[in-house]
Amino acid sequence: MLELAFAPDRRSPEPVYRQLEQYLRGLLRARRLAPGERLPASRELARSLRLSRNTVNQAYQALVDEGLLRAHVGQGTFVVGRAEGPNLRAAPPAPPRALAWEGLLARRARATATPRGFFAFAGPRRIEFDCAPGRVDVSLFPLAAWKRASARALRRLPALAEATDPRGYAPLREAIARGLLARGITCDPDEVAIVNGAQQALDLVARALVDPGDAVAIEQPGWFGAALAFRASEAHLVGVGVDAEGLLTDELARIVRARRVKLLFTTPAVQSPTGVVLSQERRRELLALADEYQLPIVEDDYDSEMRYGAPAPALKTLDRAGQVIYVGTFSKALLPGLRAGYLVVPRTLAPRLALLRYAADNYTSTLIQAALADLLESGAFERHVRRVRALYAERRDALCRALAEQMPEGVRFTPPAGGNTIWLELPREADVAAVHAGVAQRGIALHTGAPFAFEGSEAAPAADRHLVISFANLDASRVDACVARLSDAVRRALPARRRRTG
Amino acid sequence: MLELAFAPDRRSPEPVYRQLEQYLRGLLRARRLAPGERLPASRELARSLRLSRNTVNQAYQALVDEGLLRAHVGQGTFVVGRAEGPNLRAAPPAPPRALAWEGLLARRARATATPRGFFAFAGPRRIEFDCAPGRVDVSLFPLAAWKRASARALRRLPALAEATDPRGYAPLREAIARGLLARGITCDPDEVAIVNGAQQALDLVARALVDPGDAVAIEQPGWFGAALAFRASEAHLVGVGVDAEGLLTDELARIVRARRVKLLFTTPAVQSPTGVVLSQERRRELLALADEYQLPIVEDDYDSEMRYGAPAPALKTLDRAGQVIYVGTFSKALLPGLRAGYLVVPRTLAPRLALLRYAADNYTSTLIQAALADLLESGAFERHVRRVRALYAERRDALCRALAEQMPEGVRFTPPAGGNTIWLELPREADVAAVHAGVAQRGIALHTGAPFAFEGSEAAPAADRHLVISFANLDASRVDACVARLSDAVRRALPARRRRTG
Repeated sequence: MLELAFAPDRRSPEPVYRQLEQYLRGLLRARRLAPGERLPASRELARSLRLSRNTVNQAYQALVDEGLLRAHVGQGTFVVGRAEGPNLRAAPPAPPRALAWEGLLARRARATATPRGFFAFAGPRRIEFDCAPGRVDVSLFPLAAWKRASARALRRLPALAEATDPRGYAPLREAIARGLLARGITCDPDEVAIVNGAQQALDLVARALVDPGDAVAIEQPGWFGAALAFRASEAHLVGVGVDAEGLLTDELARIVRARRVKLLFTTPAVQSPTGVVLSQERRRELLALADEYQLPIVEDDYDSEMRYGAPAPALKTLDRAGQVIYVGTFSKALLPGLRAGYLVVPRTLAPRLALLRYAADNYTSTLIQAALADLLESGAFERHVRRVRALYAERRDALCRALAEQMPEGVRFTPPAGGNTIWLELPREADVAAVHAGVAQRGIALHTGAPFAFEGSEAAPAADRHLVISFANLDASRVDACVARLSDAVRRALPARRRRTG
Repeated sequence: MLELAFAPDRRSPEPVYRQLEQYLRGLLRARRLAPGERLPASRELARSLRLSRNTVNQAYQALVDEGLLRAHVGQGTFVVGRAEGPNLRAAPPAPPRALAWEGLLARRARATATPRGFFAFAGPRRIEFDCAPGRVDVSLFPLAAWKRASARALRRLPALAEATDPRGYAPLREAIARGLLARGITCDPDEVAIVNGAQQALDLVARALVDPGDAVAIEQPGWFGAALAFRASEAHLVGVGVDAEGLLTDELARIVRARRVKLLFTTPAVQSPTGVVLSQERRRELLALADEYQLPIVEDDYDSEMRYGAPAPALKTLDRAGQVIYVGTFSKALLPGLRAGYLVVPRTLAPRLALLRYAADNYTSTLIQAALADLLESGAFERHVRRVRALYAERRDALCRALAEQMPEGVRFTPPAGGNTIWLELPREADVAAVHAGVAQRGIALHTGAPFAFEGSEAAPAADRHLVISFANLDASRVDACVARLSDAVRRALPARRRRTG
């Protein structure tokens, strides 16, 4: 039977037997004590709950009097059956209707849907190779440094408790502003706002700028979390294509000439999911367009610490008219579970965002913020980043090499300039469903490309023919074995005549 | 001059002098290096940044060539003045316009305003008595227990990193479901959703149910955080009065008969801010009304652990049709800065809220969630609550007694059934502005009642004549001294003929 987790409140003026009676009545109401079920003997229950036997007997008796329990001499106390009478004396004469919640939903709630194909890949029953994106190698998390930083943060607790500014904890904003110089961004801490990861940054921007029906331009394929955030504000999403030089600025130009676009979401440094870098020429074109059409740009510089080779400066560095809202996150460099990211916002917009943030959930956990500030100030963050970047770079190189060597003809990918995923195009002749099944059978967890193109996007059919493979948890020594399985799964999904070519 | 915080990226293929050049260009662009300012000598800078002098000279030379710096033999290197030529060679011919952000704001953003009178009380320059509401006595925070709980949570890190369910970390949801039995609520962990404090609970409910223009009924005076959350969804707020028995159900009945109301926000256990308890009869009336008019009820059971005397069971315990969305928080029993609270939602609504939560900010920090789960499971939370409740009860009693003894005639309040604030009505003849000024002069931080009634509410004039006094940080031994100053401030704001009566 159900374990009884009752603990009396000794400070309450309500006698303990009444408290126990109410507790049991709750379980009966919730049917966690089922009709016909036998209750523990009062002696037994009294011992386990450290109550007097009299207390238990009084509680049982009250429920017997109420008709909820019945006592059989020599057998014990039982929950009455449904047929044995009204099992809740207090029930109102006419049973209330259940609320028809679906009918009460707001339009925004109805506009918010799980990204297309989010559950398309079933995943292996037993994961042998974890290539699922959106995560990091947790074994690298700087545990000792984090504990030290947390302990130091807690020592500042009385002062920390006052740090309720919706823009975030001032020392963290300062540390971030200093850190951004490495991305070429010079900003004031007052222009930095701490949020619960990049997702909240996008949500706040949507709240501030997007009215229902407003057009939001977004790369296709593109980051589905952004599509989700803007959909939740009833945006009309307009896809803009991507090629080897990044966002197609020509295509964007045609769109903004034809219709009012409220904002553009882009990932210029490492396009999500393709991994390409926006060229210098396109950057200039983009900013000129934004200026001409008064188009705010949301630059998601996710994973800015994990760049391999010479990273291009942030688009924000070219922004002289305050058109670019810059988004960063600690999810990739440290841990998504921290839920910490930041925005750099034009000064006139900052107070609006702060108020919307306060309305949404006040501010980010100060314990997390203060520990993070300490980690940044002490240099532990930078040391961690250097260590992880070197390992990820090694994994990236190994994965790119193994894919190039082992994959059959027709498989295409661009070595990503940063981040930890590879956007892998499957051969045109491959049976995509068979690839998914084969990958799962071989113990590999990864993601399909489907969610990265929204319903109706021109990029959707192509996205469906892609896999997203993360190398964050793929030690270089295991890459060849993983890719052998992957390429085997792809080969077997090809028509028979193609299987031997490679 | 500005401290140069440049750190080269040794892994980058970009030469260090180019990195330094870009860094300095960023400072120049942002005008953090002002026209005419002298740069450090290259030898000096090379030493402080641990670079070769040649690296620094190369970077300076590149910027001199570009016309951004000028070198004077024997004097040093200077930032060029504005008049000395184009100080950014890359500047486009026509300077871009600054985006007109105000014109781009969404209707929601424009509908979201700081609560009325939020900044009305200036506050003392030096706080001697901290009676500001919304905080807790941080010196009571169970530091050692929290550290142990955090350390244990971090040990579960690899598994914890997978805990990305937007509804929250399963062990925490289970611990909360168990804990809710003490409030008479029997629910399944699947009906519990973890959020970043009660504010996010209200925001998510608003996102799920409130379309622009929908009427939301809210107690007046009532919790301004709720008003803010619903306003941010463009709700039309409809005030419902409060008397000594809580929400006026008669008034609500007249409203729902006359117009469609989308939901009701209420604080039945300890009305915020008045502290009164909703009577049993009104509870029954309220649920009957909700049933008849298909009206969802949001029950904010804030501060449910801090109840003095026999707490009334939650309204949710009487909810048999799934009409009540229950909101709880750890802000009051532990620390607002944790940003952790929860919802109990009807089963049909739970997946909708989970998706909206994912769109908003994914999920609550898993480090916070796991530490909290451990604190609940170990019993440390319950021990902490007992300790704080006993102290707060003592402070409440002392404050009520001192107010009754020392305050002049015409000052009224109801000893609150829970929470840590007293809603104090000032005498009709008192000059309210003079009271505020007098309180601040006497070193007392507190809040005025103004924000608790929204613009246009019938309760607004009365709310303006109230003070909100928290006893969370008011040790019983200091209560008399604090109230002496308070009552002196009130007396001096009375017409001369009244000052002697008391």
